[in-house]
Amino acid sequence: MSVEATIVEMARQAKKAARDVAAATTDCKNRVLTSIAETIENRADAIQAENLKDIERAREMGLSPAMIDRLTITDATIASMAGGLRDVVALPDPVGEVTSTEERPSGITVSRVRIPLGVIGMIYESRPNVTIDAAGLCLKAGNAIILRGGSEAFYSNMVLAGCIADALEENGLPKEVVQLIPMRDREAVNVLLKQEDFIDVMIPRGGEGLIRFVTANSLIPVLKHYKGVCHVYVDKEADLEKAKAICINSKVQRPGVCNAMETMLVHRDVAQAYLPLVGAAFKEAGVTLKGCPETRKHLAWAEEAVEADWPAEYLDLTLAVKVVDSVDEALEHIAAYNSGHTESIVTTNEETAKRFVQGADSSAVMVNASTRFNDGGELGLGTEIGISTSKLHAFGPMGLEELTSRKFVVYGDGQIRG
Amino acid sequence: MSVEATIVEMARQAKKAARDVAAATTDCKNRVLTSIAETIENRADAIQAENLKDIERAREMGLSPAMIDRLTITDATIASMAGGLRDVVALPDPVGEVTSTEERPSGITVSRVRIPLGVIGMIYESRPNVTIDAAGLCLKAGNAIILRGGSEAFYSNMVLAGCIADALEENGLPKEVVQLIPMRDREAVNVLLKQEDFIDVMIPRGGEGLIRFVTANSLIPVLKHYKGVCHVYVDKEADLEKAKAICINSKVQRPGVCNAMETMLVHRDVAQAYLPLVGAAFKEAGVTLKGCPETRKHLAWAEEAVEADWPAEYLDLTLAVKVVDSVDEALEHIAAYNSGHTESIVTTNEETAKRFVQGADSSAVMVNASTRFNDGGELGLGTEIGISTSKLHAFGPMGLEELTSRKFVVYGDGQIRG
Repeated sequence: MSVEATIVEMARQAKKAARDVAAATTDCKNRVLTSIAETIENRADAIQAENLKDIERAREMGLSPAMIDRLTITDATIASMAGGLRDVVALPDPVGEVTSTEERPSGITVSRVRIPLGVIGMIYESRPNVTIDAAGLCLKAGNAIILRGGSEAFYSNMVLAGCIADALEENGLPKEVVQLIPMRDREAVNVLLKQEDFIDVMIPRGGEGLIRFVTANSLIPVLKHYKGVCHVYVDKEADLEKAKAICINSKVQRPGVCNAMETMLVHRDVAQAYLPLVGAAFKEAGVTLKGCPETRKHLAWAEEAVEADWPAEYLDLTLAVKVVDSVDEALEHIAAYNSGHTESIVTTNEETAKRFVQGADSSAVMVNASTRFNDGGELGLGTEIGISTSKLHAFGPMGLEELTSRKFVVYGDGQIRG
Repeated sequence: MSVEATIVEMARQAKKAARDVAAATTDCKNRVLTSIAETIENRADAIQAENLKDIERAREMGLSPAMIDRLTITDATIASMAGGLRDVVALPDPVGEVTSTEERPSGITVSRVRIPLGVIGMIYESRPNVTIDAAGLCLKAGNAIILRGGSEAFYSNMVLAGCIADALEENGLPKEVVQLIPMRDREAVNVLLKQEDFIDVMIPRGGEGLIRFVTANSLIPVLKHYKGVCHVYVDKEADLEKAKAICINSKVQRPGVCNAMETMLVHRDVAQAYLPLVGAAFKEAGVTLKGCPETRKHLAWAEEAVEADWPAEYLDLTLAVKVVDSVDEALEHIAAYNSGHTESIVTTNEETAKRFVQGADSSAVMVNASTRFNDGGELGLGTEIGISTSKLHAFGPMGLEELTSRKFVVYGDGQIRG
């Protein structure tokens, strides 16, 4: 079969299987998730043997040690995948939830009922554990999934997908509920993105290039997140010790993630007191600062910020710093450069906080808390499949509920429209 | 300015204006809506004079009387536009609604707050009243809007957009909150669909060709509805008199709309009793039937259905009819041919109804009620801007709530992540 024929057939089978998993009971879905966890644990040796093929190929191709590290399935990775699945078992099943019911003047009763999205296409890079994490969440929300992993994790993904398929069949669900594209061809992605008759949503996870490619070529709606250019604004009425702790945590705790701070905005009235205080802590943590001229008056060792620093997502121990005259100037800066991800204000003034919360147009707005709290687990979604920085369907971390839709269910006793 | 430069600048201005309208109070937005209504009423003569230019051009171009009818702004159209705006004033403002609040183990308080989508791009055909209806709803939900009307309604849309701009400025909002593309060039649409940095969602309304073009070319997420192939399934345990009333209403009351029935499925056990009963009523109403062989045993005058009849959206007094052996066969047929719009079952058996409600994968599933109830007003949304048959963000009629998103608002007192 050609690549195209294979992908179209997979998509068709996924849509068929989606009806079975949509109708599956919570118990049945939980049994599958538990079976996958046990199968992964039981086949740890086989999984690691296949993973070794990917690692050897990666070495031959000269991939960086960091890339090889992300690719490697250790005993801890196995435990974490199995543990993650058991966490999903413990989460409530969103499917079937009745979110509202109302009797209408016509006499019909209208309810809105949560349903699976249907078929989810997932395109991701590198880490093979995403195969398990994504499949587990999609499945719990009653969806069928087509997975397209990174070509560097091909053997690892194939063996993991085999574990999932066996667990599905053991529990009476068709193995087509979770399918992995069994080929490395790039054409497969192009064909996948055109299967709008069978696939309901695409979720790409990876670099900005991948996500822009998917957005430009997909006929299927896309849930996506380009990047995180997160700001912390330290107001003139901030508690400066708290501001320091929040800024250090936002920047330093995990600089390579999307909810790390990339630009710190400081009110002019506290610049003299605050910048040397936080500057010393940043210096100690090895952070390079790119400052506006006003910043550099107080922190002579900061490098000069250029225009390219304001929209930059460093994902590293580098931070842009700008002094502003007001919360409104901070909001103007954020409006000009933000990525819709996370903004935080440090202030003791409730009115200023309110103004910031209303005016900052991002998926999460924090008052006196670290940007690092924009995370499905921390915000109470249980776990997340990704984060959306566009506003349609989901804005922010996406958990089980975001993997569902709602339909109208109407009960009448013969009503017709007049 | 080139077409491209004009559109990009409009999109940029829309994003800027979106911040103002997002922050506007309910009172302010309601005053604008009321002002638009009054302005339209006061300028009725000028509006109808501009409308006449469109009508004359349409006549010259040989447009059908039906098209010219849809284009014409009568006194009743003016009253209906103004009345529609006043209805929107009366609807609750969705912006700012707190949909949940929870304190997390870390001590932060996490709320989800309803926010406008931002900038909405609306592409529509023919009827100039959509300019007012769409602008009113988008504005009440706190959004900026860029409107692209049909070229045949160009003068009508321009004069209506002028009324809106004046009402905005009178009430202290920038006129860029609602902008109409002031040119007929087709290139404008292509440029508009690429403005993902400024526009949050595209809503196309019109024929399937327009919607497929927008979907294929947009970098911006699209809320859409291709067509409505709605089914009514008459179960073996149906009350046949109710079934008849529901089927006649679903097909005949307004055959040209998307929630009209296009295929009737009848259980074999009641075919002999039901088909002649409903057939006589359809015949009287002038409905042409396309029947499967089993149907034609009971209704000799029905034409023979061919494969192309099952996915057909007739939008006319034509109906496909098929006899099935079970609710499951009905669901199989619906799964094969449905468009995600509306399905209805007529039955007195609760278990069969449940099975149908779970298994029919459409935005609205009715039990013992006409398919014609799939409508924003009837289902309790107040009014609607369109209907979505894809599951992302909205599935079914879209009212004010569907023109919003939600963000996470977090209050802490210095929390950082450990």
